[in-house]
Order: sequence, then C-alpha cells, then structure tokens
Amino acid sequence: MLDRARVLDAGDPLEEYRERFLVPEGVIYLDGNSLGCLPKATPARIEQVVREEWGQDLIRSWNSAGWIDMPARVGAKIAPLIGAQPHEVIACDSTSVNLFKLISAALALRPDRKVVLSEPGNFPTDLYMIEGLEKQGLAERRLAERGKLVEALDDGVALLLLTHTHYKTGELFDMGELTRAAHDAGALVLWDLSHSGGALPVDLNGCGADFAVGCGYKYLGGGPGAPAYAFVAERHLEAAQQPLTGWMGHAAPFAFSDDYAAAPGVEKLLCGTPPILGLAALEVGVDLIAEIGVERLYAKAQKLSEFFRQCLAENGVTLDLVSPADPARRGSQLSFRAGQAYAICQALIARGVIGDFRDPDILRFGFAPAYLRFEDVAEAARHLAEVLETGEWQREEFRERAAVT
Amino acid sequence: MLDRARVLDAGDPLEEYRERFLVPEGVIYLDGNSLGCLPKATPARIEQVVREEWGQDLIRSWNSAGWIDMPARVGAKIAPLIGAQPHEVIACDSTSVNLFKLISAALALRPDRKVVLSEPGNFPTDLYMIEGLEKQGLAERRLAERGKLVEALDDGVALLLLTHTHYKTGELFDMGELTRAAHDAGALVLWDLSHSGGALPVDLNGCGADFAVGCGYKYLGGGPGAPAYAFVAERHLEAAQQPLTGWMGHAAPFAFSDDYAAAPGVEKLLCGTPPILGLAALEVGVDLIAEIGVERLYAKAQKLSEFFRQCLAENGVTLDLVSPADPARRGSQLSFRAGQAYAICQALIARGVIGDFRDPDILRFGFAPAYLRFEDVAEAARHLAEVLETGEWQREEFRERAAVT
Repeated sequence: MLDRARVLDAGDPLEEYRERFLVPEGVIYLDGNSLGCLPKATPARIEQVVREEWGQDLIRSWNSAGWIDMPARVGAKIAPLIGAQPHEVIACDSTSVNLFKLISAALALRPDRKVVLSEPGNFPTDLYMIEGLEKQGLAERRLAERGKLVEALDDGVALLLLTHTHYKTGELFDMGELTRAAHDAGALVLWDLSHSGGALPVDLNGCGADFAVGCGYKYLGGGPGAPAYAFVAERHLEAAQQPLTGWMGHAAPFAFSDDYAAAPGVEKLLCGTPPILGLAALEVGVDLIAEIGVERLYAKAQKLSEFFRQCLAENGVTLDLVSPADPARRGSQLSFRAGQAYAICQALIARGVIGDFRDPDILRFGFAPAYLRFEDVAEAARHLAEVLETGEWQREEFRERAAVT
Repeated sequence: MLDRARVLDAGDPLEEYRERFLVPEGVIYLDGNSLGCLPKATPARIEQVVREEWGQDLIRSWNSAGWIDMPARVGAKIAPLIGAQPHEVIACDSTSVNLFKLISAALALRPDRKVVLSEPGNFPTDLYMIEGLEKQGLAERRLAERGKLVEALDDGVALLLLTHTHYKTGELFDMGELTRAAHDAGALVLWDLSHSGGALPVDLNGCGADFAVGCGYKYLGGGPGAPAYAFVAERHLEAAQQPLTGWMGHAAPFAFSDDYAAAPGVEKLLCGTPPILGLAALEVGVDLIAEIGVERLYAKAQKLSEFFRQCLAENGVTLDLVSPADPARRGSQLSFRAGQAYAICQALIARGVIGDFRDPDILRFGFAPAYLRFEDVAEAARHLAEVLETGEWQREEFRERAAVT
C-alpha cells in the first residue's frame, strides 16, 4: 500500500503545497477539519502586524495598514470560494454570533412567520442559537429528520437553517434542491458552511441561497478561534437588519452619533472593533487556499478518503462507515461508528495519528488535501489496524476524558 | 519645564515600566486610551502560540496549552483590577457583543420592565446595542442628561447602563451613588469600564454593581481588536440568562447535545470558539498592568495630566477644557474643545505627538502612565503651543479626513 501511496503522491498536482504548511514531524494530521495546519507564511505576517503595525505605527494603522477594511477585504477573498460576490461576504465575530445575526435578519424579513427549521443532530451551536432567539420569544425552533425536512416546510417557516457538510457524518445536503424547496414554501435559507468553505466548491448564488455563515479555523487555516464569515445575498443587503447593532456596523461610525444607522452594505453585519490579529492570520490562510483552488482540493480529498477506505479494507479493518459511501455525497471527511471510539482515538493520537472523536461513538478523520499525502493515509490506516488488532486502545490512559474531546 | 519634567521622571516609581513597552522612536503617544502600546513580552508569546501551540501541537493545544480555559483565566486576572472576584469575569467577544448579552440578561431579570436608561453622548456602541434590542421589541431606550439620570429612574427602568469614564470628556460617574440610586428604583446597573479598566481602581463589588463590560485594547494593552471582558455579580450568576447561547457557553459543550443547557458560572456568557491569538496577547497586557497596579497607575496619570495643564498654561495655550478640572473626577485623559480640532490633531501627529480627535470638535489626550514620561508631556505641550502659534494646522494636508478619525 505504501508503494501505491507513493506513486499517487508523485502524481499529485497539489504536492508542492504541502511545503507551504507546517506539518509537525511525526504527525499524521487527520484533523484539519477541526483546526487547520499553520501556513508557513502566517508567523511572519503576524509578527509584522504585532511588531510593526501595532508596535510602531500604533493607532495610525487603522488607516495606514488598512485595519479598518480588513473584515470586508478578507470577506471579499472568501467570497469566490463559496460562490458569492465580494461585497456579499464579511469576516467577523464567531460563527455562533453570525448565526444569531442572520437568523434574526431572516425573521425580520418574514415578520409573519416564526419557525426556524433545522435537523436534529445539526452542529449544536446552530441549534442553540435558534434556542437563544426562542427564549427571547422571537423564534420557534422546529427540528425534522433529514428525510422529512421538505414536508416540514409549511407556511410558518421563516428560515431553513442547515449545515451544508454535516460535522459528524460529512454528509452533504443538496444545496440547490433544499434552497428551492424552502423558497417554494416562502422561507429563506441560511447555510452553515463551516465544514464546506475552503474544502469543496460551494455555489451560494448559483443555488439562490439567502444567507450563509462559516468558520475560519478549519479548512481556511485561520488559526485557533479565527474570525468567522457571513454572507448576505445582494438582493437582501438593503432590507436586512440584524440586532447586534454595534458601532462598526454604523454607516458613519466616526460621526459618533447617538442614533444607529446601519451601513448600506454587508458591513452592517459588523458589531464591535474587528480582531486584527485573528483577521491577519485568517487572511494568510484564505490567500493560500484560494491559490490552490477549492476544485482541486476537493478532487484530491475525495481520492484521499477513498484510498483510506481501500487501505482499511486491505488491512482487514471493518468499521461501520457513517459517512456516505459515495465520495460525491460527502465533504472531506470519513466518520466511523465504533464502540470505544474515544479510546481508539486516543490510542491513535499516542501514535501520532491525530483524528478526532465525536460523542458518543464517532471516529472522525478529516482529509485536508493541501498538506495531506497518500502516504500519510496509508500509514494512518496501518496504525488504526494495529491499534484494533493489538487492543492497545484498552489501556487505562486512553479512557480518561480530557476537557476538550 | 523640561528640567522640571526630568526631575519628576527621576522620582517616578513607575519609571522602570516604560522599558517593558515598545514606545516608537520619535513618538509621544497620548492615545493609549484608544490603542495601548505593545508590551515587549507580547511578540514572543504570540510567536509561541502561533509556531508551537498552533503549529506543532495543533488541535491538542485545546487541552495541553489550556486554550479552552483562556477566557476564564484571563477574566480571572482582570477581576482584581475592577473589584471583582475571579469567577465573576470572563474575557470574550467584543465590548459591543458583551453589552448585548448583559443588557438582555438584565431585561430577563426584570421581566415587568423594559426601559434601559442611559445618557445622550454615551459611547455610541452602548446606545446602539440598546437600540438593537429595542428593534427586537425587547427594550425601550431612554436617555437622560447626566444631571437628570436619577430622576429618570422610575419603575419602568430595568437597567441603568452607563460608561464609568466618559470616552469624550473623561468625566467619571460616581459608581457607588448611581448604583445605589438604580437599586433604590428597583433597576439593575451595567457599567461600561472601557476607559476605566486598567487605568484606575474600580470597585464593582464594593459598589454593588450587577454587570459590567470593558475593552481589552485600551489601557489593558491587549492589541488591536483584543477580546473584551464581561462581569456578572456572583448573586446573579445562577439566574442570569443571555440569548447568545453558543456552544462554548453550554454546560457540556463536548456532549454535542441538541438542547442548550447554560454553564453554571460566568462561562454561560461564552458563545463561539474563543479567539486564541487575541486572548494570548490580552493576557500579556493584563499581567503587566496587574504587576504595576492600578492604584499607582492612576496616581501617576493624575500627576501627568495636571502637569500637562501647567505646561499648556506656561506655554500660553488657552483651550477650552471639557474634562473636569479636578483630577479625581476624571479618568486618565484630558479633552479640550477647539474649533479646528481635527486639523490641530493631524498637525500634532505630523510632529510625532499622537493624540486623537473626537467629532465634532474635541482634542483628546490620553495619559497611559505605564509608558508616558513627564518629559513627553512637557514636549507635547510645547508642540501644541507651536502648532497653534505658527498656524501650521491650517495646511491643506491636515484637513482631509481619513476613514478612521
């Protein structure tokens, strides 16, 4: 298998890009879907922001270093990765906070409806942010299983909120089909692209999507807790209103008026002062992913994950696949159900193979193709086979839960 | 004056701390109240977070580097600077977002009241966040002039929201008196400490305050767009609810439950994934300010600002002071009204004296005493006198407004 992997690596058009990331010695990193690897250009850029822009130029950098434009600038760079126009995307706050803004915006655009429809098992923060608005009395949360979403779209539904690539299983929604169904029912759609953006081609405008949010620290390589992004379709930019009306979303923040007047464009989604260190790191990651291109990345990710399945099979590993078997129906990850998933995951980490665990019984492997080789995948499969064969996952040390799992 | 300034510097107990900050060559920085100078320890700490914790240890750092605890850890370090207990403060999101959470929390604790009372001319984001909730139909904004706040506290007022040190004038509210008046009227109080925290001693618990927020990038030296902080008095921790119910505020985020259950402590204010780069920089600043001590800092700031006034007088500068003349009644800044404030400010910046301008006619000088010398203050006064005498502020180049003023 290793021989075959090396042949595949030699023919890989993305091979050169691995060198642009720091991939730690002795680590096979299958968790780029959770926290992407560090682009090698990031430390120097951050040092420049810290030592020069902050340290030397201080407050002047809001103008001279373009800090004030960073949310819009980084947003505009994310836009082509998700099928949006540059002026429809902004980088700011967290995915959760942006969900709150856009769920609220959708509810305000459908004042006679209150239901926000999603699926059980969606990423928790998506569901919790609906609950936050529900507790305010402004929304009503409705959950329907994946196969019953369309029939749950009645005339009470203001918004359909779904995660394009499911965080646990990697299953993809058909964005075009669901968006159409929601619109047919008079509802708006908000797509959470956290596990899609930078991993696979997304065509928000092609699908007629209304709103979207996504995460900066996964496939986009923005670093731990990077700022997130938010998309508002051009046709909603004028009417959209959101309640987190902070001064940076004002049409003229430095007029210091007592009364709020929303910025005309997507800047109306801004709230507080933008986090410059985080945005600078995110920009480096986005530039690099844009340079590689999401089409090529997704093509390689599909090959990597299929190769992993072959290697598992050849190693005699039979785990219950919970991701779609068809690579075109899943994002850049594979998830398996395993009774002792947590301990198996820990045993793999001890061997330098970093995947992750999702409660209660999911082993999740992400294939971030910018820096992952077929060789890594073959080796990861061998390690997993050995962990299961030897039973080393049964060791006491692998059972104790850490704070973050 | 310069001689006198040097004698004062020689006797300054904080003199040694100037070396702990990067103060750019040729700059007299009177804007530490807007963006604090870079602590010299920050670049190395950020490099460690980027290259080692992110680059090498990757996702494992959530546990091994304690990332997951950073909001609570940094909050606990801020607590003694503002008269709070460690478990009452958390570092997260922006001041604006934290205002939204705590205004909402207050309204939920006073369900029969809707008015949020503040003063016109409060920092805009404070007023705008009330407006955001007003547009949601959840709050009613009421503004009363400073001298009429107490009489405006009727039985419709759920919350009194004030900024302790006024951003424009530097005037201090009597926190104890206003808090008592609000409580007497059955209202809660939320203090915005953005221009107080790290500048002067604040005693939230001594005053019986209910809630507070504050900024990380001014006197705390956390860097551009640093995370903010939020305080909830212990007696409210159990009952307080806020609508930005993201996964990081869940009692068990990694159980990935569909239903939200708030964390029992101040962690219930968390929403999305914490911004690690920003928190790491903020922690360095907070550690340094805590080491120096806010009592000493404020004592020196008062001396610096009084010395500035003397130097102005001796230089024959007569500008209209809008800050209280009594240094005990103001924060660490002095503001003057001047017809051509913007151009004067730009002319000073061209001479390396960085103060700031606040629309429409305020010249504002901040005295961040950790790195400012009496010599700087004497020189700044001389420059200001010269700018006014020579009329160099009348040059065309000083009139053109930048994006950020």
